[in-house]
Amino acid sequence: MSDRIQKQLDFIVELDKMKSIFRHTILTDRSRRENDAEHSFHIATMAIILKEHSVYPDVDLTRVMKMLLVHDLVEIDAGDTFAYDDLGNESKQLRESRAAERIYGLLPADQGSELMALWREFDAAATHDAKFAAALDRLQPMLNNLHTDGHTWRESGVTLEKVRSRAEPIREAIPAVYEAVWPQIEGMIRSILGAGA
Amino acid sequence: MSDRIQKQLDFIVELDKMKSIFRHTILTDRSRRENDAEHSFHIATMAIILKEHSVYPDVDLTRVMKMLLVHDLVEIDAGDTFAYDDLGNESKQLRESRAAERIYGLLPADQGSELMALWREFDAAATHDAKFAAALDRLQPMLNNLHTDGHTWRESGVTLEKVRSRAEPIREAIPAVYEAVWPQIEGMIRSILGAGA
Repeated sequence: MSDRIQKQLDFIVELDKMKSIFRHTILTDRSRRENDAEHSFHIATMAIILKEHSVYPDVDLTRVMKMLLVHDLVEIDAGDTFAYDDLGNESKQLRESRAAERIYGLLPADQGSELMALWREFDAAATHDAKFAAALDRLQPMLNNLHTDGHTWRESGVTLEKVRSRAEPIREAIPAVYEAVWPQIEGMIRSILGAGA
Repeated sequence: MSDRIQKQLDFIVELDKMKSIFRHTILTDRSRRENDAEHSFHIATMAIILKEHSVYPDVDLTRVMKMLLVHDLVEIDAGDTFAYDDLGNESKQLRESRAAERIYGLLPADQGSELMALWREFDAAATHDAKFAAALDRLQPMLNNLHTDGHTWRESGVTLEKVRSRAEPIREAIPAVYEAVWPQIEGMIRSILGAGA
């Protein structure tokens, strides 16, 4: 077997571990938490459906789908850092950089470099492709929250301002979708906060 | 909210059910069966890595990734039919056609038609894109089998000829990858059959 194909197969087998990295978001049937493989499937498919609402006409669907499929691979080593965990997010960058070196490093150098660059681009959230991708990455857990009576919002003791700030990439990249879902999100957060007061 | 965005969000929420459709393949850590969302994530990512080995130079990665992300959605209603279950495969076509009408029908008509056409194209396995996609859909469970001591092969009492026939789309579309993995697959099947004789 060629060394190139061996490396590609090693990377493909490594992908299986994404199925055991659990996130805070729960499934809409409330049976359990979702994992990174499921989340990545969900948002890559959302890219196909919601691209037409991107404010950036030059968004490249292929690059966005690639970015969404590989952007969470670092969590195989670094674990999932909960969006509303400020302490965990401080050490996130170092842990994820080390993870990226190892995981993308399983691939032949040209492919590893391409995917690592896409991951860094996603993380920097500066390009149109990355901004659209980030909006989908933020929207999916919020939709699951809306369909599970605000599960992670209740769990984490969020404030309206924190959720509004998490939703900002949605407002920026796909404003029509934001306008459609934000009133529901705000209503649910207010009801959670009201009940806790 | 516009009717178009409402339909798109309904479809996106429906996607969550893919996380509860379980397949026969087990995870490489042997902890449980994998589900359709995880499988779809796995093979769409494999398309990025293995496209260079496709014998068809005109393969369109965007179409293939779309096809792989949506081709199993019919199983939300129709369930997973095990590859080596001959009886289940007889009624599969009717069950899946009805499922496709309902699930792709959740979307605005233009998007529903596009994804339904991609699903039919995958199912017919006649175009280059569909042949490459089919190869990945067949390869992933075989790799998981190889890393779990042939789990589903042992479970189903397969023959070498049945597995060779399942692997034919791999040989046809990505022969270099087939050459790399087939000797390992054949060796494992022979060892399973030998032990059972």
